[in-house]
Amino acid sequence: MAEKKSSDVLTAAVIVIGNEILSGRTQDTNTSWIAERLTQRGIVIREVRILPDEEEAIITAVSTLRQKFDYVFTTGGIGPTHDDVTAECVAKAFGVGMEQNEEAFRMLEQHYGLENLTPPRAKMAKIPIGARLIPNPVSAAPGFILENVYVMAGVPRVMHAMLDHVTDTLRVGKTVLSNTVACMTPESALAEDLEKLQNQYPDIEIGSYPHFRGGTLGLSVVLRSTEEDQLEKATEELIAIIRRHGDEPRALSLRPGSIVH
Amino acid sequence: MAEKKSSDVLTAAVIVIGNEILSGRTQDTNTSWIAERLTQRGIVIREVRILPDEEEAIITAVSTLRQKFDYVFTTGGIGPTHDDVTAECVAKAFGVGMEQNEEAFRMLEQHYGLENLTPPRAKMAKIPIGARLIPNPVSAAPGFILENVYVMAGVPRVMHAMLDHVTDTLRVGKTVLSNTVACMTPESALAEDLEKLQNQYPDIEIGSYPHFRGGTLGLSVVLRSTEEDQLEKATEELIAIIRRHGDEPRALSLRPGSIVH
Repeated sequence: MAEKKSSDVLTAAVIVIGNEILSGRTQDTNTSWIAERLTQRGIVIREVRILPDEEEAIITAVSTLRQKFDYVFTTGGIGPTHDDVTAECVAKAFGVGMEQNEEAFRMLEQHYGLENLTPPRAKMAKIPIGARLIPNPVSAAPGFILENVYVMAGVPRVMHAMLDHVTDTLRVGKTVLSNTVACMTPESALAEDLEKLQNQYPDIEIGSYPHFRGGTLGLSVVLRSTEEDQLEKATEELIAIIRRHGDEPRALSLRPGSIVH
Repeated sequence: MAEKKSSDVLTAAVIVIGNEILSGRTQDTNTSWIAERLTQRGIVIREVRILPDEEEAIITAVSTLRQKFDYVFTTGGIGPTHDDVTAECVAKAFGVGMEQNEEAFRMLEQHYGLENLTPPRAKMAKIPIGARLIPNPVSAAPGFILENVYVMAGVPRVMHAMLDHVTDTLRVGKTVLSNTVACMTPESALAEDLEKLQNQYPDIEIGSYPHFRGGTLGLSVVLRSTEEDQLEKATEELIAIIRRHGDEPRALSLRPGSIVH
């Protein structure tokens, strides 16, 4: 489909950092969590990169994506060990130094006690110069914000708390609403009608996703737009198309959840 | 940690294509599936990109990653509808044209019957010139291989079949073995010892991953290497380190599954 150029919609990229995700050892669930929250805020994720704990790859991704999108969110690599290189890489991507952040140091001191604040723990207070902290109510070591880059922990429970903390401070884009229509008509049978529908509604993003359920191939057609009127019209036409194929659409949802048919 | 430069290990990137993954609507499971299969083959995934169904982003990613890594695997966007642009984008990334592939056409004809081979279905026989097909035993429309780029379907069941078909034809890298040692010692308490261990074994990739289980913060330390002897020695030292912290390692696994302690 045509790339949407609407200036109303805010865009974001997510950088997931960690060898454990790349090796298949751990299934990433942070991306879909972040996507769901951002969608509700009118912010659309346009790219996700999953990278190893390696300086060059992280620096390149942060540098590229922060210029391309309104926001960049990173998860992972901000712990106390030698393989936690994210903070340093973000500093390098911005060309700024690192410093012991006094506020972060106090957070860690309060959590561990000064006598237990070993060098690796104190390392987590080293933050790029000029960054604002994102508190970590679970295990103290904070994330941070540098311009449009939000650096968060990789442990899902900690990441969730950090994202909750910053969500209200993010700009609000025009909400992208989406309708999903599920049917049993094969994708290839609907393809011509879907293309006509797409040409008729160029501002609506129309995607079709085949899937197996109970051994049978089904299809979900997803319509996304910031324009509710247009979306409703296109959805009605889509339902009519599916019925003309002798099928009955099985589900219809309008997202985000706050608006329900 | 230091970037591993071993020429023995083959590298790969995965490109996951589809707005439904980016929007959080669908959880990507293809990446971890591919990672697991490739690991067994001695091929290590170094980067994953999740992209929308948009030409520019896909062409850029294919062009960049195919030069950087030994293999690139793409999933998604090869169906019959207007938003399936992957094949066209891969052709553009290689600077080659598209043609109706006669073998692909026959596969589709056999599946649908010639009388039902509508233009959208026939579109799935349009393949970049010079590509070799990857058969699709589930729903006929094939994937393809162009040099080091493997283009597969997004529906997991179809992708699994396509990957099965090509796995034996991939080059075999030196197998990366990995040991995982789980403990309850906080990451920050182990950090200095882990760094020493890393310096002592520069060719072993040592990663530590905190996680919550039953409300308690635990730690998995993962050691990865192609050298079994070195890996065993480092693992024994790690176990001794954890015991010195008054903890007892809770699990020990050596992967891939074919080699067991």
